[in-house]
Amino acid sequence: AYHSIGELPEAVDLAVVAVPAEAVLDVAEHAVKAGTKGLLVVSSGFAEAGPEGVERQEKLLEIVRAHGLRLIGPNCLGVINTDPEVHLNASLAPELPPAGRVGFFSHSAALGLVILEFAAERGLGFSTFVSARNRADVSGNDLLQFWEEDPHTDMALLYLETFGNPRRFTRIARRFAHRKPILAVKGARSTAAQSVTQIEARQTFGGTALVDALFRQTGVIRAETLDEMFDIAVVLAHQPLPRGNRVAIVSNSRGVATLFADASEANGLELAGPGIIDLGAMTNADQYERAVRESLEHDDVDALLVSFACVGSCTGEPVVDAIRRGVDAAEESTGVPKPVLLCLMGAAGAVATEPPPESGASPQRIFPSFLFPESAPRALAKVVGYARFRQKKPGTVRWFEDVDAASARELLKALLETREPGEDDLVWAGDDAARSILACFKVAVEEAARDTGAKPPGALEVGIHSDRHFGPLIEIRCEGRPPLVRITPLTDLDIAEVVRNVECAKDPAIEELLARLSQAIEELPWLAAMDSWLVPGEEDGAKLHGIRIGLRPYTGRLTAPATQPGGQHAGS
Amino acid sequence: AYHSIGELPEAVDLAVVAVPAEAVLDVAEHAVKAGTKGLLVVSSGFAEAGPEGVERQEKLLEIVRAHGLRLIGPNCLGVINTDPEVHLNASLAPELPPAGRVGFFSHSAALGLVILEFAAERGLGFSTFVSARNRADVSGNDLLQFWEEDPHTDMALLYLETFGNPRRFTRIARRFAHRKPILAVKGARSTAAQSVTQIEARQTFGGTALVDALFRQTGVIRAETLDEMFDIAVVLAHQPLPRGNRVAIVSNSRGVATLFADASEANGLELAGPGIIDLGAMTNADQYERAVRESLEHDDVDALLVSFACVGSCTGEPVVDAIRRGVDAAEESTGVPKPVLLCLMGAAGAVATEPPPESGASPQRIFPSFLFPESAPRALAKVVGYARFRQKKPGTVRWFEDVDAASARELLKALLETREPGEDDLVWAGDDAARSILACFKVAVEEAARDTGAKPPGALEVGIHSDRHFGPLIEIRCEGRPPLVRITPLTDLDIAEVVRNVECAKDPAIEELLARLSQAIEELPWLAAMDSWLVPGEEDGAKLHGIRIGLRPYTGRLTAPATQPGGQHAGS
Repeated sequence: AYHSIGELPEAVDLAVVAVPAEAVLDVAEHAVKAGTKGLLVVSSGFAEAGPEGVERQEKLLEIVRAHGLRLIGPNCLGVINTDPEVHLNASLAPELPPAGRVGFFSHSAALGLVILEFAAERGLGFSTFVSARNRADVSGNDLLQFWEEDPHTDMALLYLETFGNPRRFTRIARRFAHRKPILAVKGARSTAAQSVTQIEARQTFGGTALVDALFRQTGVIRAETLDEMFDIAVVLAHQPLPRGNRVAIVSNSRGVATLFADASEANGLELAGPGIIDLGAMTNADQYERAVRESLEHDDVDALLVSFACVGSCTGEPVVDAIRRGVDAAEESTGVPKPVLLCLMGAAGAVATEPPPESGASPQRIFPSFLFPESAPRALAKVVGYARFRQKKPGTVRWFEDVDAASARELLKALLETREPGEDDLVWAGDDAARSILACFKVAVEEAARDTGAKPPGALEVGIHSDRHFGPLIEIRCEGRPPLVRITPLTDLDIAEVVRNVECAKDPAIEELLARLSQAIEELPWLAAMDSWLVPGEEDGAKLHGIRIGLRPYTGRLTAPATQPGGQHAGS
Repeated sequence: AYHSIGELPEAVDLAVVAVPAEAVLDVAEHAVKAGTKGLLVVSSGFAEAGPEGVERQEKLLEIVRAHGLRLIGPNCLGVINTDPEVHLNASLAPELPPAGRVGFFSHSAALGLVILEFAAERGLGFSTFVSARNRADVSGNDLLQFWEEDPHTDMALLYLETFGNPRRFTRIARRFAHRKPILAVKGARSTAAQSVTQIEARQTFGGTALVDALFRQTGVIRAETLDEMFDIAVVLAHQPLPRGNRVAIVSNSRGVATLFADASEANGLELAGPGIIDLGAMTNADQYERAVRESLEHDDVDALLVSFACVGSCTGEPVVDAIRRGVDAAEESTGVPKPVLLCLMGAAGAVATEPPPESGASPQRIFPSFLFPESAPRALAKVVGYARFRQKKPGTVRWFEDVDAASARELLKALLETREPGEDDLVWAGDDAARSILACFKVAVEEAARDTGAKPPGALEVGIHSDRHFGPLIEIRCEGRPPLVRITPLTDLDIAEVVRNVECAKDPAIEELLARLSQAIEELPWLAAMDSWLVPGEEDGAKLHGIRIGLRPYTGRLTAPATQPGGQHAGS
């Protein structure tokens, strides 16, 4: 053993620091001098522990940034990498979880370790695990960027309490989700829990329905509970995506088939093809093989639910082998892989089957299996929702070159310097200031003063809000319809969908106005709120009326032009 | 071994018949002659197997009825009784389930056996188990009546596809639920599943919200899934009922506490008392004991959620012992037992603790434990709902003696003989016939013809429907309010609650009219439907206007006057 990192004969890739908080800065300095490339700080006593800790964390970050290192933590539970060439367990987990293709980021250390413990039992394997409590440097967003390109990772699993930098999260997540699934359990949803996690009350117009809409827009699959997270993950990990929501059911128990059917309907799946095949209690493996094959060969069937209730002392193995043969045969004859979910009444997790030795069939197949029948359709329905997201093309962000963002920023900064923030911590400016600023983005604002007029006829309400989790949102309200809320930047497809939905106003000028507004939000992170009426179809194009904007100081970096979801951006 | 039951040296209590269907009637005859008291017919090939089977089942029933035996099945999976003095396993279950205080009736044989298999693992023990597929004689209702008085049974667990005789079910269930909990998983809810189980489409105005309301009125606790059924059952089996919905949370992980709080809020529980006590990762057993005790001693706390996330290689045992000490101490100092639910992150089921040897404390305590935190508040919320039902007094049915049911029956039978049923299989009669029939119950019906007038001002809509599952329902609609649907017979408390809810019409005459209508439904099972307007507050009392009634042939027995929920009935 060595007494200090400086004594080591060669530089190390990663230094795990677990000394008392007071000693961490010294150790970090030593590590830097010794040429270490990364720091993992397990010690607590940083930003989570009051003003002194905040200062300590800032100093630690300075050291790291000054030397180009990356830092995980502090106050974190570690990093795991199961790649045989890395084989790293720098965590409090007593042993490596099973290797697999899931990347896992956990905000909560304890829950992260518990999830790792259950993973083996539930048939999940991991490529990487990071628990980065304080996230002073490396965040969930960084992990997503890494996994997006990582050939060892097919899917991201996130246990989050907040999204860190929401602008970055939504941007990265949208792009990621078009390539690989992201499955998130989001804690701290309730008011009570938010006060535990010291998050101020939500300032925006939140609620579960909104959060659902935003998850849908980003393509992130949301698990309601940890249990459901495992259920969905095991389907994503081991089965192909379904083409649609039509299912068939094969069972040897009417009771179980009934529970399958009930839960399918409750979760928005449709029975199709043969519907329910009840093989009866006296069935055999051959009948299973035939029923599975025939169901999957049906053109109308997108996924199959199979149950086998083993009554008395029997084993499910021959039935699983038969199911596998049925799936192999159907895939060969149709060329369409379809997800198959099992309920073996007793085995929760994943069931692996080997091909018959003489066959040249595909190698090991793993079927997700559920303890009770109701969980399978629930998990499948979430996967169907994600498959629908993947079927849509990603869309591009229109990025206008005829704008003058620099002048707009000067105007914003001047306003922030001269005015006092209101009760909501926002500096509000009326239509004159708003007109000058938005003019830089060629967004037209009518001259009329805000309080002179009522809502102009045929106008839409257009607002900007900042959501703590998702970042800036554009909200469009059209009388008599539910409001539409979308995360920015808006892609061409987002805008087309919004305009389709507010049928009261079809107008290409509106599409351009929304695209320019979305760009203004991207380029002006000070712009935190806006209320306005959008009047379409005037001779001189669509205009905003009765506007006010809310500004907030911003000290972060300015993001590069959003070459957004799908990668490409269309100049204009 | 003997060749036939007649050769046995003494009469048997129960004969289990497992011969081919064709031989069952012969065996039954022999068994009867040999003095057998009960028959359990496992053989299939009866009512479930087409016309021939239906006939065979009727003959079997004739034999049984003629000799005063009781019959379980046919086509059933058996009976279990764990009472040490009985110790009977006449089922296909390979071994006896753990003994306990839950009575379990399963419509589905396979699901029933699967549930028995899981029970031990989940900490549930049974007094009795019956799977009575075809229910030719003994039904779930009979079991409920038996368990209500059975000193070995504290709670009924039902896996149902239909309720059998719904009038009997609701009557028995309401009374039962005031003494012991009934927990039901109801399969075959979806349209798809109903077609599997050969149930015709629902004829009434069903839907999940309605079914929920009806379960609430009968006090039956409804589990959405098998998983949830175990969760709720293990709380009911091992913990006292809470006084209300206010919970406190003790945890050593902020993440788990957050999930507890989220799920509590989502399920209608309120954080109270100390709210969340986060002991932190470095806590010890003494701190658990103190936190548990202090939380439970809080007057505002009705129930406690405790989690312990065991990180790394550790054991939960000392913590469970500490929790137990905290619970013992709080119970001793306050005298109020409160439910305590655990999440030990890994142990799903029940955790038993013994008292410290030196203490004279209460003996073994069993705490329900949940695999993941979200399940505990969900189960607790269902138990809170049931506790609220138990806090209400049962109510009594007003039974009027000044009625002439016999004449009403003659009028109904005459109508059914002379008219053809309509498309809905009901014989409809207008206001003249309705007036004569309801006059026998002193329910006043206005003379005006149905189609002459629009809705009278201030009128309520009063209807009768027959629900396939729940039997006759009374529906009351008051403009601008959601409709109220109640199972009959209505108790005085049901009626008071209905009248309170339709504030637009407070009138003691309405209460009496509803009570008389409810009695008419009880005494006239032919009366399957009614539409009418109820006009309150006229000088000559409340009256029904614009009425029509729908009749259906009825061949069953007439029920005795409903000495209803709570036992007593008030003459009038």
